[in-house]
Amino acid sequence: MDKITTSIITIGDELLIGQTIDTNSAWMAQQLNAMGIWVHRRVAIGDIRDDILDALAKESAVSDVVLITGGLGPTADDITKPTLCEYFNTRLVQHQETLENVLHIFESRGLPILQRNLDQSLVPETATVIENKRGTAPGMWFEKEGKIYVSMPGVPHEMKGIMEDYVLPRLAKDFKTPAVIHQTLVTSGMGESFIAERLVAFEAKLPAHIKLAYLPSYSLLKLRLTGFGKDKLSVAAEVSILFHQLKDLLADITVTDQDISIGEVLGNLLKEKGKTMGTAESCTGGLIASWITAVPGSSAYFKGSAVTYANEMKVKMLGVKPETLQAHGAVSEATVQEMLTGALALLQTDYAIAVSGIMGPDGGTPEKPVGTVWIAVGNAKRTVTVKYQLRYDRERNTQMTAVYAMNELRKLILE
Amino acid sequence: MDKITTSIITIGDELLIGQTIDTNSAWMAQQLNAMGIWVHRRVAIGDIRDDILDALAKESAVSDVVLITGGLGPTADDITKPTLCEYFNTRLVQHQETLENVLHIFESRGLPILQRNLDQSLVPETATVIENKRGTAPGMWFEKEGKIYVSMPGVPHEMKGIMEDYVLPRLAKDFKTPAVIHQTLVTSGMGESFIAERLVAFEAKLPAHIKLAYLPSYSLLKLRLTGFGKDKLSVAAEVSILFHQLKDLLADITVTDQDISIGEVLGNLLKEKGKTMGTAESCTGGLIASWITAVPGSSAYFKGSAVTYANEMKVKMLGVKPETLQAHGAVSEATVQEMLTGALALLQTDYAIAVSGIMGPDGGTPEKPVGTVWIAVGNAKRTVTVKYQLRYDRERNTQMTAVYAMNELRKLILE
Repeated sequence: MDKITTSIITIGDELLIGQTIDTNSAWMAQQLNAMGIWVHRRVAIGDIRDDILDALAKESAVSDVVLITGGLGPTADDITKPTLCEYFNTRLVQHQETLENVLHIFESRGLPILQRNLDQSLVPETATVIENKRGTAPGMWFEKEGKIYVSMPGVPHEMKGIMEDYVLPRLAKDFKTPAVIHQTLVTSGMGESFIAERLVAFEAKLPAHIKLAYLPSYSLLKLRLTGFGKDKLSVAAEVSILFHQLKDLLADITVTDQDISIGEVLGNLLKEKGKTMGTAESCTGGLIASWITAVPGSSAYFKGSAVTYANEMKVKMLGVKPETLQAHGAVSEATVQEMLTGALALLQTDYAIAVSGIMGPDGGTPEKPVGTVWIAVGNAKRTVTVKYQLRYDRERNTQMTAVYAMNELRKLILE
Repeated sequence: MDKITTSIITIGDELLIGQTIDTNSAWMAQQLNAMGIWVHRRVAIGDIRDDILDALAKESAVSDVVLITGGLGPTADDITKPTLCEYFNTRLVQHQETLENVLHIFESRGLPILQRNLDQSLVPETATVIENKRGTAPGMWFEKEGKIYVSMPGVPHEMKGIMEDYVLPRLAKDFKTPAVIHQTLVTSGMGESFIAERLVAFEAKLPAHIKLAYLPSYSLLKLRLTGFGKDKLSVAAEVSILFHQLKDLLADITVTDQDISIGEVLGNLLKEKGKTMGTAESCTGGLIASWITAVPGSSAYFKGSAVTYANEMKVKMLGVKPETLQAHGAVSEATVQEMLTGALALLQTDYAIAVSGIMGPDGGTPEKPVGTVWIAVGNAKRTVTVKYQLRYDRERNTQMTAVYAMNELRKLILE
């Protein structure tokens, strides 16, 4: 088969009332895409028999592979298994290895076992059972009229285990997949339409099997070049040549030529230079530190943070002068300057970031409306301060402040 | 009409290759659900003409309202608008108010304007144009064969503005929607199947129009009771009676009877008691502080945090004894005890949380494998320390540590 198309069906009322954000599909799509399997439809439906049957029929009509997550829990709202039996015209039978796995899990956790847990070892008779090493509900692989269906639990780390251990390797074995190559450039400081204008000639000459996508991500913009083809090496070479041209065209605004977070970009830079950093955070409340430490190995360059949410902590932990707070307020150039100086002294790092702002929805004044934020970055010799006026909600203002601040430090280190 | 059904279509390759997680649909579903409009299908497709046309046809066949986001940007990969013209058999015409809005946005930001920006004021002739106060791409409302279609930009805060300003009020006006009442209980410390066992009799007597859903969320479990009906007051009364029974049955494991985050639960408790808190964080790197300060008004009870990622910072900022680190290691009961004592002294708060652990993927040893975490919570008089052995990846281990730590402090304050 030349091009495998896949649909992902996620089952669960919680997805439809907005109580849960679906992160499973994104992860699955990433994995499939990396091996050249195109996910062309993702569908979320509720724990409703008719809707599940309808979705199975619709998706198998347009896809070779239908991956299904969710609805396999031990409680009464989970009806995926009986509905699968109906769709595949089969019945539930006990699966011995799954029963042993369920018993083992409960024994090892010292928990008593209930009938509803034992029932997790009932599987549709025609399914190939896939072991779930991280939980009680197994995965199930079905084939019907040339189409493949795989049902997996919705708990993210259980689904990931089943995908990695069995589904992805088997799909790679059963299908001859096309090569797909992505290369991503992350830029900052220029809007989508201005970049597009600069890339008119570049985009015009892209061959049909290579696409350019614009993906805004907070204050940054990702440009993703994707090539498809039969031969991986030749696609990679083609994409690589074009990607170098893209980099040259956007050299002045490039943050990184890898698809990594700003925390990773900054971390790589610090590691490369053998430098350390820390943060002094007011309005971001520790978010910058948490993003930086989300990167494995960050202890090599990140020492710590003074989260000085209250003004008295800015004085006590960072040595900000009470007179400065009095004269200029907590959200001011003078305050973030002193926070930065204090952070460098306290944390004994080569570089530091200091931020103070009003994230909303309350706390704004006519002079300093919601969204006012001051950022200082630098080292003992040189500091840069910048002011932003953000226009979003509290969460987005906070996240944008974190991205801006990390990017400012990145630029200062490179200068 | 008695029950309006809605489909949400999100358009964009970035959703299908897993580069972007779809948060728009969840927000939209929440808003619609709150007004009694049931979202029964959510579909994500790529920027592909055939797939867009197919999705419009399929979703309008099963839904009264089809909400569409994405693909309206100024760049070449955005093909939603011409495809909508094709589907509705119309053509693009210039819309004067939108043109003025685009010009105004560019002028007020001091940016030069490009043809591709001006083109954002081109709209399908049969559409009712919806003003976008936060960006250049307007919303568009279509009606065809008794079905409603609304196309909106995919940028979250622009989509939200259009929904709030126009789409939701108009849907409320045009349709007689059923009443939907949700009540959510958040529990901790008991697995899904054990709770289900305790609720067998309760679930058995639930009427058909009231459903109970189990929604795992990190170490917590949410139980959501949802009632539907014609009369809002009577549905609310019915749900309320059942919800009280549910609360009584699960009183020993209840965290909160509202659908709020653990950060909000803890914040509300501190406000109610007039107490303050702070954190000393090693392995969570500021995540606990950032979750607590994500709640508006948290400055009333949150003073700050010492993020002591490096051991020398535990000594310097929190007064942890070098001998303690030497004898027991950074991830130990003795260290988190001293971190807690140090945090209370430094931050001068009523309560504090201290955490230290090994989040992975590296850093584990046979004695302290990845996932080992020590938590201390308390005040000057009383502290509680707990050890967890987590079994997930770095991100999930960190988030679970944050939830566990906040929940421990909640329990201690209540005791």
